[in-house]
Amino acid sequence: MQIGRVRGAIHSTINHPFYDGRKLLIVDYLDTGGEPTGEYVIAIDTVDSGAGETVLVLDEGNSARQIVDRSNAPVRSVIVGIVDQISIP
Amino acid sequence: MQIGRVRGAIHSTINHPFYDGRKLLIVDYLDTGGEPTGEYVIAIDTVDSGAGETVLVLDEGNSARQIVDRSNAPVRSVIVGIVDQISIP
Amino acid sequence: MQIGRVRGAIHSTINHPFYDGRKLLIVDYLDTGGEPTGEYVIAIDTVDSGAGETVLVLDEGNSARQIVDRSNAPVRSVIVGIVDQISIP
Amino acid sequence: MQIGRVRGAIHSTINHPFYDGRKLLIVDYLDTGGEPTGEYVIAIDTVDSGAGETVLVLDEGNSARQIVDRSNAPVRSVIVGIVDQISIP
Amino acid sequence: MQIGRVRGAIHSTINHPFYDGRKLLIVDYLDTGGEPTGEYVIAIDTVDSGAGETVLVLDEGNSARQIVDRSNAPVRSVIVGIVDQISIP
Repeated sequence: MQIGRVRGAIHSTINHPFYDGRKLLIVDYLDTGGEPTGEYVIAIDTVDSGAGETVLVLDEGNSARQIVDRSNAPVRSVIVGIVDQISIP
Repeated sequence: MQIGRVRGAIHSTINHPFYDGRKLLIVDYLDTGGEPTGEYVIAIDTVDSGAGETVLVLDEGNSARQIVDRSNAPVRSVIVGIVDQISIP
Repeated sequence: MQIGRVRGAIHSTINHPFYDGRKLLIVDYLDTGGEPTGEYVIAIDTVDSGAGETVLVLDEGNSARQIVDRSNAPVRSVIVGIVDQISIP
Repeated sequence: MQIGRVRGAIHSTINHPFYDGRKLLIVDYLDTGGEPTGEYVIAIDTVDSGAGETVLVLDEGNSARQIVDRSNAPVRSVIVGIVDQISIP
Repeated sequence: MQIGRVRGAIHSTINHPFYDGRKLLIVDYLDTGGEPTGEYVIAIDTVDSGAGETVLVLDEGNSARQIVDRSNAPVRSVIVGIVDQISIP
């Protein structure tokens, strides 16, 4: 998984029932210092996250399908958590 | 998924029936500012997109096979939507 | 697999039972000279590793699921070993 | 898929019957201007391509196995077509 | 597949029976001119290769599992051949 920050939403009609009513978010990947790396991903939201929040992104198809509990979903990238705390000793 | 812009078409004979009559498009990946990153992908079109349009590309084999509804298709990258709007608060 | 060094832990609630009680670590990838590459990954720990330790990271979903012995786990990246020695002739 | 140009062949004994008699080619990836990106791949040839030809490379295991029609082949990258034309409006 | 050069071995205890007695090698990826790219991979050896040898690395889980003939092995990267010759016309 990677750490990212939600930048906003993207609106696009996808011709597959899995996407009906799904929220697609633009997530900027962050480095471990919390700065954007310049890379991003469009991910499905599963934790009701919003712009500005720091999140965890899981980017693998079979994992994504387990998270959304749909074994045949055409999905690869999901926001799986909002980051509560980073502990660096 | 990533955001891209259709640059044009590519013509190549592929020796697999899945590709008979399929449109293969060259898609330049865009950064979140809408500028090309320099990376691209050759993707199957599923939404009748054309040159200059901003699209969503899904780049994972099992997802691509669900989108084209063919469980044994040799395909990894598909254009799944035309981007209607990007909402950044 | 890649070599990494554990930097710290990350705390996030993930809405999937697989993650209940799992430790998520931030691992900086190292080059073969032992210096951080600037890339990192958030990985599941399976060997009780801690901050500062040099570890092996396996980054593939199906492998990760075998390591944690859960065929349906939504997981891609796991710490599979603590590096004991590197032998370069 | 990506666009590449065949640079030459590579000779190596691989201890798996799938590779008996297979041609392994070195393919330089090209950018959309037709220039090498500096990246390359060693791919199985399925279209009798040769040095200097511009080809399409499909780089995903399950797709590659469909193209070679062997569900258990240890293969990830295949040359699936020779590029006939690129149409950019 | 990619071309690499074996740099040395890495010693780490991995808590999965597949790794009992397996040799883990550090392989520097090479560009097509034979120079290290700066990237590397830790791979399972299947051809009794040693430090300094130029090898072929196959980096995909399902392919790796076919090469080691273990459908449930937690493995992604394997050395599948020693490079005998590169033919560039």
